[in-house]
Amino acid sequence: MSDYKNIDSYLEKNLDQSLAELSRYVAQPSISAQNIGLRECAQLVKEMLEARGFKAEVMPTEGAPVVFAERKGKSDKTLLIYNHYDVQPPEPLELWESPPFEPAIRGGKMYGRGVSDDKGHLMARLHAIDSILETEGDLPCNIKFIIEGEEETASVHLHDFIRNHKEKLSADACIWEFGGVDHRGVPMQYLGLRGICYVELSVESLGTDVHSGLGGSIFPNAAWRLVWALNSLKGPDERIRIPGFYDDVKQPSKRDRELMEALPDAAEEYKSRYGVKEFIKGLKGGIDLKMEEVFTPTCTICGITSGYQGPGSKTVQPARASAKVDFRLVPDQKPDTVLKQLRAHLDAEGFNDVQIEFLGGEAAARTDPDDPFVKLVVKTSEEVFEMPMQLVPTVGGSGPNYPFVHDLNLPVATAGLGYPDTKAHAPNENIRIDLYLKHARHMARVIKEFAK
Amino acid sequence: MSDYKNIDSYLEKNLDQSLAELSRYVAQPSISAQNIGLRECAQLVKEMLEARGFKAEVMPTEGAPVVFAERKGKSDKTLLIYNHYDVQPPEPLELWESPPFEPAIRGGKMYGRGVSDDKGHLMARLHAIDSILETEGDLPCNIKFIIEGEEETASVHLHDFIRNHKEKLSADACIWEFGGVDHRGVPMQYLGLRGICYVELSVESLGTDVHSGLGGSIFPNAAWRLVWALNSLKGPDERIRIPGFYDDVKQPSKRDRELMEALPDAAEEYKSRYGVKEFIKGLKGGIDLKMEEVFTPTCTICGITSGYQGPGSKTVQPARASAKVDFRLVPDQKPDTVLKQLRAHLDAEGFNDVQIEFLGGEAAARTDPDDPFVKLVVKTSEEVFEMPMQLVPTVGGSGPNYPFVHDLNLPVATAGLGYPDTKAHAPNENIRIDLYLKHARHMARVIKEFAK
Repeated sequence: MSDYKNIDSYLEKNLDQSLAELSRYVAQPSISAQNIGLRECAQLVKEMLEARGFKAEVMPTEGAPVVFAERKGKSDKTLLIYNHYDVQPPEPLELWESPPFEPAIRGGKMYGRGVSDDKGHLMARLHAIDSILETEGDLPCNIKFIIEGEEETASVHLHDFIRNHKEKLSADACIWEFGGVDHRGVPMQYLGLRGICYVELSVESLGTDVHSGLGGSIFPNAAWRLVWALNSLKGPDERIRIPGFYDDVKQPSKRDRELMEALPDAAEEYKSRYGVKEFIKGLKGGIDLKMEEVFTPTCTICGITSGYQGPGSKTVQPARASAKVDFRLVPDQKPDTVLKQLRAHLDAEGFNDVQIEFLGGEAAARTDPDDPFVKLVVKTSEEVFEMPMQLVPTVGGSGPNYPFVHDLNLPVATAGLGYPDTKAHAPNENIRIDLYLKHARHMARVIKEFAK
Repeated sequence: MSDYKNIDSYLEKNLDQSLAELSRYVAQPSISAQNIGLRECAQLVKEMLEARGFKAEVMPTEGAPVVFAERKGKSDKTLLIYNHYDVQPPEPLELWESPPFEPAIRGGKMYGRGVSDDKGHLMARLHAIDSILETEGDLPCNIKFIIEGEEETASVHLHDFIRNHKEKLSADACIWEFGGVDHRGVPMQYLGLRGICYVELSVESLGTDVHSGLGGSIFPNAAWRLVWALNSLKGPDERIRIPGFYDDVKQPSKRDRELMEALPDAAEEYKSRYGVKEFIKGLKGGIDLKMEEVFTPTCTICGITSGYQGPGSKTVQPARASAKVDFRLVPDQKPDTVLKQLRAHLDAEGFNDVQIEFLGGEAAARTDPDDPFVKLVVKTSEEVFEMPMQLVPTVGGSGPNYPFVHDLNLPVATAGLGYPDTKAHAPNENIRIDLYLKHARHMARVIKEFAK
């Protein structure tokens, strides 16, 4: 498209400069789980947006601040772009080939914690905006950014923030924080996210650790209490045993199944990438694996800790034990309901000594695959990637799209630079620089076509 | 007894000098679980014994070396003294009021890792030997020391060492590494120890940790596999579910029950000392609690680790999980048998993905309460403590007394400086200096009376 000659040329010529800015952004740690560097990073984001002529504010929440920014454009239409400036903890540090907060480029990739999830996405979008401003002098439509700092800890305060600022955030459509290509290189349009209810379960059975030769026969053991409580949640058949848990689950539609059937079978890909020997529930691949992957709610132990964990043996009965557990939710499950069901279940099973700390939650939400905005994003993608985008009714991960879809009433479409080996949440997180450039080219087109 | 006037006088006058030597001994870290400082500590022990005219050797094993030492005396009788120079890991470090390897004296107590378990015992015994040598010029009987470096990691190589050196270790009686007074200040004669089988169970379910939004529905989770495997070992009813586990359990005799009935009820003491709100199995105290405490085998989780354990939430599905588990054994259970039963049970329950690493084991053993040597130790104790010693058929803790009782055929009696707040295996481990002196006085009497 000749429309984009100058823009594409700008994006290529200024790529190194944009990557240098991304590098400075990634070098600022912003670990929401550990409350490290969040305020500093929010300030940096505000300055990045102000440098593009946006009116930007760092707005407080009860947790990490939200950066809101707005710049008017020629048309009345408003595009809302959602990103987050927080990142996952970098541990285990010893597995990184270069330090997580010292971004490094090698082999056409940039490495660093958050470079993919989600700092590279924001920076590629700013690169696209720069290309329009430099070649055309103005934006073709209004653009608003909402950039939060708690996405990696389940966006605890975002829902309230959005409900309290519906006017400020009003828009016609929303571009989601992520997107990308699958293992074949095909760009994917992710139309929904699962919800989540993340809790820490903990037990304190004694005032102090004791010698296991004394306590083992007669004192309550926190680790055993926790193991039994966890076992009561889900057994080896993978069925979640909390009464009522499945009551609100909406079964996938015929249309969902058709879209899922069109997706490639990732079974072999998963086996080689993640070292999976066998899938659970007897799954072998095909449509059954695909459907199970995203349309069932889950209960996952993300971590457990109790007692002595060093080398060799220590004969101690631990006084304390805790586990981090996430429930992935599907429509129409709600985290508040799951939390209540969990407490009632533990009490009923005799585990009222197990404390529940709620660490964040969000309901699932999905956008209609036939929404005109989705079609626009799909069409512009095809122009850049030179192949059709594939529609995915929902993914297995979670995010705060519920308030965007149901409070702001926006169609939400994904676009991004992700790819299967991006190692989000893992050591050696990275982006492919070719996809970074493509994402910027795609975003420039989304903005311009949307304005029409 | 006028016999002991000079000896008691020596012990009091030279107490500070003995404590200074103990302080140097405690300052040498010797953590068997972490393989820290063991060889250095063995060498130090050898030098301490040589300074008393013992012929001492540092003898290799497949693990930490054993220090063997011998000095001839006037009579033909031989007393074997068993101690260990290794200590428990000092963690959690932040709970120590003074650093664990910088011994400090305050309020009539000496604090430091290993000061009670077991370095203070050895030093008080050397102090007793010094008192005899200084006042009488020679030992009244032969004394042999066997001082190992793996007691805190279940004495993995001691059994073989003893069987391979039966001649060298031959003796007429044995003094055990520990002993002490109970919460009333009454000296206790512990006549047996439970056995132990210590294992690490581990699962590796994937090649790498994965985002919990992807893996939760379809990939095996190492933490769940471990929780279910552990749950299969023991449920909330505290009954160990491994087939055959209870088959070799010998029921306590009428005599055992009588001796246990004479012991004080420690229920209230346990509640206040360890913050126990309720005992398990519906136990309230009295003879039921006392019997359960030492005559039943146990299965105790000493530690579990998997996935993310930091603050806040991290949405990761862990690839690896492990737990440290100790089984306390009673006569006539054997660790080899338990290990085989455990493997067979896990396989039968579908947990052949759970690996078992054997970290040490020992069978239970007991000495006859009516043995003449036991009577001698009890009688000499009464002279020092000015109250009767109380007989305890067995304790809940474990130790390698099986090869002493069953391979060397020795009566094994306890004598020591322990007391309930000694905090063995815990932060702020300490000894009471008054009990240190009493233990030295008692040991001088044991040696002299035994020689007669």
